[in-house]
Amino acid sequence: MTNSPDSRQENLEHVIQDVRETLKRNRIAEGLVERQKMPHHELVERLVQRQNLVRLERQLESLHAADIATLLEALPLTDRLVVWELVRADRDGEVLLEVSDAVRESLIAVMDPGELLNVASSLHPDELADLAADFPETVMDDVVSSLLPEQRGQLELAMSYAEDTVGALMDFDLVTVREDVALEVAFRYLRRFDALPDHTDKLFVVDRDGLFQGVIHLKTLLVNAPDVDVADVMARDVVSFSPEDSAQDAADAFERYDLVSAPVVDDKRRLIGRITIEAVIDFIRESTEEERLSQAGLREQEDIFAPVNRSVKNRAPWLAINLVTALIASRVIGLFEDSIEQLVALAALMPIVAGMGGNIGNQTITMIVRELAFRHIDRRDIAILYIKELKIALINGLIWGGMLAVITSLLYGNIPLGTVMLAAVTLTFLVAALFGVTIPLVRAHFKRDPALGSSVMITAITDSGGFFIFLGLATLFLL
Amino acid sequence: MTNSPDSRQENLEHVIQDVRETLKRNRIAEGLVERQKMPHHELVERLVQRQNLVRLERQLESLHAADIATLLEALPLTDRLVVWELVRADRDGEVLLEVSDAVRESLIAVMDPGELLNVASSLHPDELADLAADFPETVMDDVVSSLLPEQRGQLELAMSYAEDTVGALMDFDLVTVREDVALEVAFRYLRRFDALPDHTDKLFVVDRDGLFQGVIHLKTLLVNAPDVDVADVMARDVVSFSPEDSAQDAADAFERYDLVSAPVVDDKRRLIGRITIEAVIDFIRESTEEERLSQAGLREQEDIFAPVNRSVKNRAPWLAINLVTALIASRVIGLFEDSIEQLVALAALMPIVAGMGGNIGNQTITMIVRELAFRHIDRRDIAILYIKELKIALINGLIWGGMLAVITSLLYGNIPLGTVMLAAVTLTFLVAALFGVTIPLVRAHFKRDPALGSSVMITAITDSGGFFIFLGLATLFLL
Repeated sequence: MTNSPDSRQENLEHVIQDVRETLKRNRIAEGLVERQKMPHHELVERLVQRQNLVRLERQLESLHAADIATLLEALPLTDRLVVWELVRADRDGEVLLEVSDAVRESLIAVMDPGELLNVASSLHPDELADLAADFPETVMDDVVSSLLPEQRGQLELAMSYAEDTVGALMDFDLVTVREDVALEVAFRYLRRFDALPDHTDKLFVVDRDGLFQGVIHLKTLLVNAPDVDVADVMARDVVSFSPEDSAQDAADAFERYDLVSAPVVDDKRRLIGRITIEAVIDFIRESTEEERLSQAGLREQEDIFAPVNRSVKNRAPWLAINLVTALIASRVIGLFEDSIEQLVALAALMPIVAGMGGNIGNQTITMIVRELAFRHIDRRDIAILYIKELKIALINGLIWGGMLAVITSLLYGNIPLGTVMLAAVTLTFLVAALFGVTIPLVRAHFKRDPALGSSVMITAITDSGGFFIFLGLATLFLL
Repeated sequence: MTNSPDSRQENLEHVIQDVRETLKRNRIAEGLVERQKMPHHELVERLVQRQNLVRLERQLESLHAADIATLLEALPLTDRLVVWELVRADRDGEVLLEVSDAVRESLIAVMDPGELLNVASSLHPDELADLAADFPETVMDDVVSSLLPEQRGQLELAMSYAEDTVGALMDFDLVTVREDVALEVAFRYLRRFDALPDHTDKLFVVDRDGLFQGVIHLKTLLVNAPDVDVADVMARDVVSFSPEDSAQDAADAFERYDLVSAPVVDDKRRLIGRITIEAVIDFIRESTEEERLSQAGLREQEDIFAPVNRSVKNRAPWLAINLVTALIASRVIGLFEDSIEQLVALAALMPIVAGMGGNIGNQTITMIVRELAFRHIDRRDIAILYIKELKIALINGLIWGGMLAVITSLLYGNIPLGTVMLAAVTLTFLVAALFGVTIPLVRAHFKRDPALGSSVMITAITDSGGFFIFLGLATLFLL
């Protein structure tokens, strides 16, 4: 019963290792059979291979779907497809829900319509909605027509909401009770279930019209006597969501109010679904992941075993933007070619000003984005933010610019050059702070995510601005 | 009953607005009284102020502790302390647990030892452990000596584990049953509770020596008949943690296996505590936050109303590192001052090579860090990773370098210069990819977080490297 995540992790790594070696042995054996045309050995080899696969199959059966997904993601395409064949058909659905988008595509690509139809029929409507985009259209048509009217309605409902809304995260595994019954009745009702849906921490209380009235926690159910009425112990002041609410707001509320599940109601307060911590955590992980990727200018996760041209495309937009901003900065330097020719030290010193300015700008943006996300910045705070960031930039400019002034003066034996350095660093830092506050505020004002793209913009500004300020000051005062 | 997060959010914003205006009015009134020496008005003004505060106090009572925390964080220090006075003393503890570190410090600073002792006595040992570092030592001594021996043991246990371990996240709110009893007995036992601890989704099953045997979900309890034995329906194959396990592993396991709570056992399988999704989500949020800050070279969250010098210190280390790397890059350029004097266009073009190289390097690192975090990279994969990233860099180098070659040739009417551009971009991209794979792999190998610091290192390499390659090639082939 050693079940710590460490030992599970190690176990999973062993399985991955084992699968790869087994499949490699099988491939070598196959190669021998084919190359050396040894018909008398062939049968034996095939039997050994068969045995290996049966052993793998058994190993797969003991793994959690999430672990099978990790295994599939860790394998090169050919091995991955061999293992995918070995996964029991009735588990295909749960595994497809767990794997990353890129890997899911590669798995669905090798499944025939009949298999896909089987997978679809094993899924709940909300899960089906998550996979629908990856299924061929003809298969989805067959799936939809095979559903019961209620399920079809749920599928359509789940698919009708945008990706980043509560509607897209909700499921329909509701356990409801009426408020005018005794707990005893609720107990008897629950005992008729084989199992309650995952993450059922509360029952939803509705009236006879299906209007949401409140919730009763399983915890509450268990500490009260069976003859108490639901109405007497239910909670009525409950955080509920509308399907149009943003998923991010729901995630914040789950964290803030420590929720495990919460009701989703329509504008008439009819209970239409629920949202669980599982869906919320998946959402948080995905949006963190997206943010991390987009900070480096990447649009999607790359599968390391996928073709190179896909990666090249994924990385192109950012490089294109960078090409343009770098060319602009280059033209700014071009304006001052005469000055550089006269004092070549400027060429060596200018990247320092631009680089440190970019640093200050990015630090400011990180702070402001955080303030925007976690606090409610009102007009008065905006003034405070500008003043504070400009003060910090000024102090930092004098400290670091001063240091650079001393180093420059010593290095080039040129005190006026050092003085220009100090002035340029301080000015560039002030510009960086000014735009570092302004860019995220403006983006937030226009309802864009302030985190995305801000870093490219500030770097473009501090590069061109830093070069312009430093070379401009040098031209004015030194030449 | 409009309780969507949107309306809660709006409500909270109104409260913040209201508090700030009320306190401002109060301050103005106070100023009038003092400046104009109007003793006949004074009494009236004081009464109005008093009324305002009473109204605020009532508003605070209706707010969730997390919302009070947000309110306190959104207020400048003087207003914050006025509001803090108005929070009911018995809620101080839960609010202190919710506020950010910087704000918590400012609140504790104005509390006297007696108040702090009261707060401490309202907290569970695991909560106390979270606050202990911020409490004055003398107060903590009094707190410890006022605890029951069992609580003291729990406090010491919780404080004995490092910050990023399961032990630091665990709590002691265990509800346990024995496996040899019928569910009916468990039901009767539970009814003796006033309330079960938050996030109780399962009971922990232990034997007579306190050794952990398994769990029984509340869900399971509720769907089974009361005469069934716990042993017959309990789950024995359960994910459990040791207090030394890393918090990150626990977070991964919670996400992977969709847990709400999980047992923490010592090396003899004695049940010592539990870890809940609430603690896990807090941990995830904090580590995401830390990562975001550290990417911009910030050590801690800054309170916008805190003094400037603290922010300057917070941002200094990164700027110091940047100063050093920028100086190195500057000296690399300095090596080629003769070349730049001969062909000043080099000065304008060199930042393009370095900048785009930095881009490629950061994209590569982001991918590799992700692979390291989510996949188990074995030796064979390392070769695949290098080959893949170098291929991508080569293709990108030829595409973007080619474009730059054309632009440069046209701009300067100098085809050899364009050719050097193409070669320099391609080579720099290859260097960026090489180090972009190597840096996170090496950091991971030495058990350092591969995400932190990698970006500074790659930028330092692509800057100096890009300048050296471009200026070096130009010197060799153009001059």
